[in-house]
Amino acid sequence: MLNIAVIGAGRIGHVHAKTIAAHPGATLALVADPFGDAASKLAEVYGARHTTDVDSVFTDEGVDAVVIGSPTPLHIPHLLAAAKAGKAVLCEKPIALDMKDVEAARDELGAVSVPVMFGFNRRFDPSFAAVHAQLEEGKIGDLENLLIISRDPSAPPAEYVKVSGGIFRDMTIHDFDMARFFLGDIVEVHAFGQNFNEEIREAGDFDAAVVTLKNAAGVVATIVNNRKCSAGYDQRLEAQGSTGTLNADNIRATTVRLSNAEVTDAAEPYLDFFLQRYADAYRIELTAFIDAVVAGTKPTPSIDDAIEALRLAEAATESAKTGKPVSLA
Amino acid sequence: MLNIAVIGAGRIGHVHAKTIAAHPGATLALVADPFGDAASKLAEVYGARHTTDVDSVFTDEGVDAVVIGSPTPLHIPHLLAAAKAGKAVLCEKPIALDMKDVEAARDELGAVSVPVMFGFNRRFDPSFAAVHAQLEEGKIGDLENLLIISRDPSAPPAEYVKVSGGIFRDMTIHDFDMARFFLGDIVEVHAFGQNFNEEIREAGDFDAAVVTLKNAAGVVATIVNNRKCSAGYDQRLEAQGSTGTLNADNIRATTVRLSNAEVTDAAEPYLDFFLQRYADAYRIELTAFIDAVVAGTKPTPSIDDAIEALRLAEAATESAKTGKPVSLA
Amino acid sequence: MLNIAVIGAGRIGHVHAKTIAAHPGATLALVADPFGDAASKLAEVYGARHTTDVDSVFTDEGVDAVVIGSPTPLHIPHLLAAAKAGKAVLCEKPIALDMKDVEAARDELGAVSVPVMFGFNRRFDPSFAAVHAQLEEGKIGDLENLLIISRDPSAPPAEYVKVSGGIFRDMTIHDFDMARFFLGDIVEVHAFGQNFNEEIREAGDFDAAVVTLKNAAGVVATIVNNRKCSAGYDQRLEAQGSTGTLNADNIRATTVRLSNAEVTDAAEPYLDFFLQRYADAYRIELTAFIDAVVAGTKPTPSIDDAIEALRLAEAATESAKTGKPVSLA
Amino acid sequence: MLNIAVIGAGRIGHVHAKTIAAHPGATLALVADPFGDAASKLAEVYGARHTTDVDSVFTDEGVDAVVIGSPTPLHIPHLLAAAKAGKAVLCEKPIALDMKDVEAARDELGAVSVPVMFGFNRRFDPSFAAVHAQLEEGKIGDLENLLIISRDPSAPPAEYVKVSGGIFRDMTIHDFDMARFFLGDIVEVHAFGQNFNEEIREAGDFDAAVVTLKNAAGVVATIVNNRKCSAGYDQRLEAQGSTGTLNADNIRATTVRLSNAEVTDAAEPYLDFFLQRYADAYRIELTAFIDAVVAGTKPTPSIDDAIEALRLAEAATESAKTGKPVSLA
Repeated sequence: MLNIAVIGAGRIGHVHAKTIAAHPGATLALVADPFGDAASKLAEVYGARHTTDVDSVFTDEGVDAVVIGSPTPLHIPHLLAAAKAGKAVLCEKPIALDMKDVEAARDELGAVSVPVMFGFNRRFDPSFAAVHAQLEEGKIGDLENLLIISRDPSAPPAEYVKVSGGIFRDMTIHDFDMARFFLGDIVEVHAFGQNFNEEIREAGDFDAAVVTLKNAAGVVATIVNNRKCSAGYDQRLEAQGSTGTLNADNIRATTVRLSNAEVTDAAEPYLDFFLQRYADAYRIELTAFIDAVVAGTKPTPSIDDAIEALRLAEAATESAKTGKPVSLA
Repeated sequence: MLNIAVIGAGRIGHVHAKTIAAHPGATLALVADPFGDAASKLAEVYGARHTTDVDSVFTDEGVDAVVIGSPTPLHIPHLLAAAKAGKAVLCEKPIALDMKDVEAARDELGAVSVPVMFGFNRRFDPSFAAVHAQLEEGKIGDLENLLIISRDPSAPPAEYVKVSGGIFRDMTIHDFDMARFFLGDIVEVHAFGQNFNEEIREAGDFDAAVVTLKNAAGVVATIVNNRKCSAGYDQRLEAQGSTGTLNADNIRATTVRLSNAEVTDAAEPYLDFFLQRYADAYRIELTAFIDAVVAGTKPTPSIDDAIEALRLAEAATESAKTGKPVSLA
Repeated sequence: MLNIAVIGAGRIGHVHAKTIAAHPGATLALVADPFGDAASKLAEVYGARHTTDVDSVFTDEGVDAVVIGSPTPLHIPHLLAAAKAGKAVLCEKPIALDMKDVEAARDELGAVSVPVMFGFNRRFDPSFAAVHAQLEEGKIGDLENLLIISRDPSAPPAEYVKVSGGIFRDMTIHDFDMARFFLGDIVEVHAFGQNFNEEIREAGDFDAAVVTLKNAAGVVATIVNNRKCSAGYDQRLEAQGSTGTLNADNIRATTVRLSNAEVTDAAEPYLDFFLQRYADAYRIELTAFIDAVVAGTKPTPSIDDAIEALRLAEAATESAKTGKPVSLA
Repeated sequence: MLNIAVIGAGRIGHVHAKTIAAHPGATLALVADPFGDAASKLAEVYGARHTTDVDSVFTDEGVDAVVIGSPTPLHIPHLLAAAKAGKAVLCEKPIALDMKDVEAARDELGAVSVPVMFGFNRRFDPSFAAVHAQLEEGKIGDLENLLIISRDPSAPPAEYVKVSGGIFRDMTIHDFDMARFFLGDIVEVHAFGQNFNEEIREAGDFDAAVVTLKNAAGVVATIVNNRKCSAGYDQRLEAQGSTGTLNADNIRATTVRLSNAEVTDAAEPYLDFFLQRYADAYRIELTAFIDAVVAGTKPTPSIDDAIEALRLAEAATESAKTGKPVSLA
């Protein structure tokens, strides 16, 4: 039985706490959050211990592994502290907003051998994972084109946008990881940033974007992003191979379709938002983490995956600002 | 080049005239309609001759074949006159409303050898025909169940209903032929008649019905009828076999799908009405007729098919009225 | 916190035990099963007590409610014992195979006031429930037709069939409840039984059927059953109303669609079997039970619903055997 | 009645000849083709005159309008000769492969006032046109993103590729026009060229590409091209607006869907190839041309549209070769 601590009792901390509590091979041992009674409230639901002293987690003998759901600027400090204390780590994305910090962290982590995994949960989405698995099995031949449509239901507040690191580091980061999941290393990036939301423009960020990426074999991935989508959280993927195409569509709460004088075969809006849409993915991700820790194998996505996704975010940011493609070869 | 006359310059006469004119192996030779200038107007469009004297069609040396689109009570007289005059015949459905009349006609026709075909156009619908062909090819094993959903967009006037012969002879007749197309001879019929439309109830007819039919092998077909469907002309079919299922869905004018805050993936209403929905079927049907006449082969659906569909309509009428199944064994 | 005992540690007992354990308002207190170590094994997973003495459940002070997942012949004895002991009861379907037994049970239950609910889980399926709710909201006007397609993935062994009470009591019973959920009281039933499976024919049962049912308002429901479906557990529903139609489609594990030279837009087989397909339904059903017990309200489906579904099963059995419709007015 | 001549009795000439012959407001007066008996054979089908002397078309008093379906290098000479002779012109795409030639032609055409239209038939496809019309009606608010997926069923011979002007001028030209149809003037183009086909690579061309285009308002269009698609001629479009999204899907010959143990809901491959997929579009295009000529209005797509599409093709060619975006502002 793996004893796991959750750092950060916010939205994502709740998801992980629930999943850990329900996992037959894990126990939610401790919830840590420095603010108010967030930790105690969450811990109580699952009969776990709680603390407002986050540092105490790293020296807690009853903790084998740590799930880091703290604010982004704390990811690296918490990650390093946990890993150096010998705790296995599952860290939420993005690892950080600045590449120098991440590379320094990687160097420090090089000396420790505990399992460290990063929360690119979409790799574990059953539909996206099935597309990937069927591609690997040769069901559509060799990959030639990948299309990722990824739109949020509505734009975050400008206050959030200002500290988010920008759309590419904050939102597209998931899509960059998905592109790498399918294409491997990327050698060139081009991005068109778009502004339809005045507040976000004033906050200095884009609210939509189209990013194209190419790997060394010439496979191209296109990412279509928008901070807002009327129909809900629009998360689709299409992989075209030399002998076929695989699509993964959006998910709705029910299969109900309405036909009347105005519309036929009309489904309901998409599952909204990521906690709902990727509920299965979070659960499977955590299981993969626990399985790797128990088996002593190296979990993925690794810190190198986190670094490469961030590198693509930086390249897209530069491309969208300068209007020039960025070479990563 | 087959010279064809069209009797009846109404809605269905227009369909056939257009198809004949466009067919490379046929010529629209003559249009006959006793009322006003209907014949001359239709004939003019395609450069054909016209007449208000329908009887003259049967002695016209420039006519090889006749398409009968006159009112139902005239079907048999026109059919017999044409066939006895040595003209090939394509007759619209239903052949008649009374079984005695039809059986007498069959006896009279027995003495002539010209090709006679009946206008159950749905057998020629590309989707329904493909389901039938794939079933014949063994793609779903042996047929176990057939489901026909057949709803008109809106109820006809009560005046029409009164002379229509009732829903089973007038509307379901097509579905009975489709059931026979897939199941062959039917041994038992059960029908629930339904009344949601007051005018039609007062006219002494049902405006909806569910009919179940069984063949000797135990295969069951279900026909779901309604004189009214908000979403348009609802024409679907599902054949379940021992190793698979085939569906034919409705048709829309475009493939466009709308997603917004209320609906996702919403298509437009169905093609409405039979002239649109079955435009291809009418064209392919006429080609089959012309091909059979040219090749000298016996076309189907035959008069026996027309009789058997009418027999099912009579059985369903009886079942819906008495509440008892009717055996046809 | 409601303390619940599960009687019967078989397949369905596992489902309920897991759901109870995960429910924030309930505790899995006790698992009872007379055979071997089934109870202890299941109890251990969730830290519950266990016993092989089923009768001890009814006198257990630590038990507030009982979920009955024992074999069908024991449903009524367990139900009565539990209810008389003042325990709330959720009893699996079918309540029994013989109407006399059920009516006697109802009379006995009349004297007790504990909440008693029956496990027609499909009422709680999110898609079917959404169709029902949208119909109630008037989204498609008044109901005119209901179509239920319900096919199992593969036939059960003949040994099972022999003691099952027949397809209508064993399999269609769920569809009868669904028909009643939408149509209310049924006044007439007609059934065609079908035989495609030799073993089941020899066991004296049908392996497929088409049942039509009518309520007093003339609304007709059609149930299409088959013990075998190549594509998986085929569970669909279509409600046609005066102003629109609602459909609920099958569910797959992923949304992936494949297109290649043979097929386009091809989905994977349906979720297979009921434990997967109706996982959400079982969970929501149990929550409804717990909510009703906690709130002191009368849960549905009630024993009257169980009786009426059984009455329809008996009527369909008679109709399929005699070839005559059965009136229930 | 408009008397129309068709120049070029090849594949596309056949399409236009048939459409003209069936149009109630037009007559196929003349078919001209210098090679063999192509013209006489095609003319015979529709009872038209024929000639191998193409130049005679321009002085033919019985010709009001000319449809140019000759090889690309002859488009401009035929177009200028016809227009100067006072004939209305519908010219197939691409107008030419070299921008200088086209600009010179535009200058020459400036002096004549006959209607001249260019054959970007996809604007007339019912589904794409419906998306455009619904966007114009405000059904999805303001356009923010356009996605065009356009894949041919199989690669043309390398011999064809060598004289085609390259994928962007030959194949993407249609998609560029579609992008302009929705976005208007484009200010920046980026293209990734791809090579999966060795023969085409050796012929100096790409066989797949992803092109992104931006207009002055910041709307981005993405074109995903491939010379080969296993599932058939893959022609889709998605327009995302501020309040909704519109999709146009592929078309199949039937609506049939197959479900079995391997696949469910599987459709057949897409209509293949452009003569089938865009049959309606060609017909509606010609009607628009005839209507404009009869009404004396200026038809679109105009020569400016043809020029702008070619300009985008040149920009994409440059971008794919240099790796840099091309500004068109």
